[in-house]
Amino acid sequence: MDTLTTPQVINSEYLLKHWQGHRNLTRKVIDAFPENHFFEFTIGGMRTAAQLTAEILAMGAPALKSIVDRSEEPFSENRFNLETKAEYLTKWDESTAAINANWEELSAQDFHETFNLFGLYNFPVIQNIQYFIDNEIHHRGQMFVYLRALGITPPFFWER
Amino acid sequence: MDTLTTPQVINSEYLLKHWQGHRNLTRKVIDAFPENHFFEFTIGGMRTAAQLTAEILAMGAPALKSIVDRSEEPFSENRFNLETKAEYLTKWDESTAAINANWEELSAQDFHETFNLFGLYNFPVIQNIQYFIDNEIHHRGQMFVYLRALGITPPFFWER
Repeated sequence: MDTLTTPQVINSEYLLKHWQGHRNLTRKVIDAFPENHFFEFTIGGMRTAAQLTAEILAMGAPALKSIVDRSEEPFSENRFNLETKAEYLTKWDESTAAINANWEELSAQDFHETFNLFGLYNFPVIQNIQYFIDNEIHHRGQMFVYLRALGITPPFFWER
Repeated sequence: MDTLTTPQVINSEYLLKHWQGHRNLTRKVIDAFPENHFFEFTIGGMRTAAQLTAEILAMGAPALKSIVDRSEEPFSENRFNLETKAEYLTKWDESTAAINANWEELSAQDFHETFNLFGLYNFPVIQNIQYFIDNEIHHRGQMFVYLRALGITPPFFWER
């Protein structure tokens, strides 16, 4: 089956809206953490919410830019050196704008081209993008548990 | 923009493969729980892994069948009355086959039709299907935390 000409299930515009909807929810989850717990609270030896967010930030906007530029720059989880929750939220908003801008550069054909993201993940672009989204949902689900363990009610999952 | 004729980013076959890949990982996570903890362990007043799995099972295959049949049957989280982890896994595998079979009945046009799932969620079919997948990733992320809190190493996130 020719993936470029068969009828459309998800198009580029819809996928961006879907991702940014999830990113909007993740922002609310980050913001729900008290400052100290964002950097310190953990369960079962897992990473803190700040560390999980650093990974999401290092993956989303920079990865999309790498895809657009076809640059195999290595992954760097701590590329931003953020030190307060406010700095994380500011970087989050910058990333939102960067993702929107770089998304415009992607043609439908680009999604199906194989690209070696970070010099490590040699897959069709669509698979790498879905990985960013799924990875964010996964780690945000973990942050929901951290919030619940702290006695804080997280936002509704369907609130985007 | 006409969503049915613009170039394809995600097609039906790919989306099914993506969902079943996630379902395969969720099955491994369920299987990683000791029997008692699957039904009893919880953090911060959240639902147990068994209750989260019951929701995923009640949503996936039955919802897809409702979509195919255009039946607005209400959602029932405990529709299966499963009592052991083995029963959950058996129902999981039955659901895998049912999803594959019902997926064949969906045309590309169907994904864009609005349908009132469970008599409650009146959205385009593609949005409801993405909700099942995202909801599963979200709750499975929470089960990862439960496993870590129990000192059990979960499967790799990218293992599908």
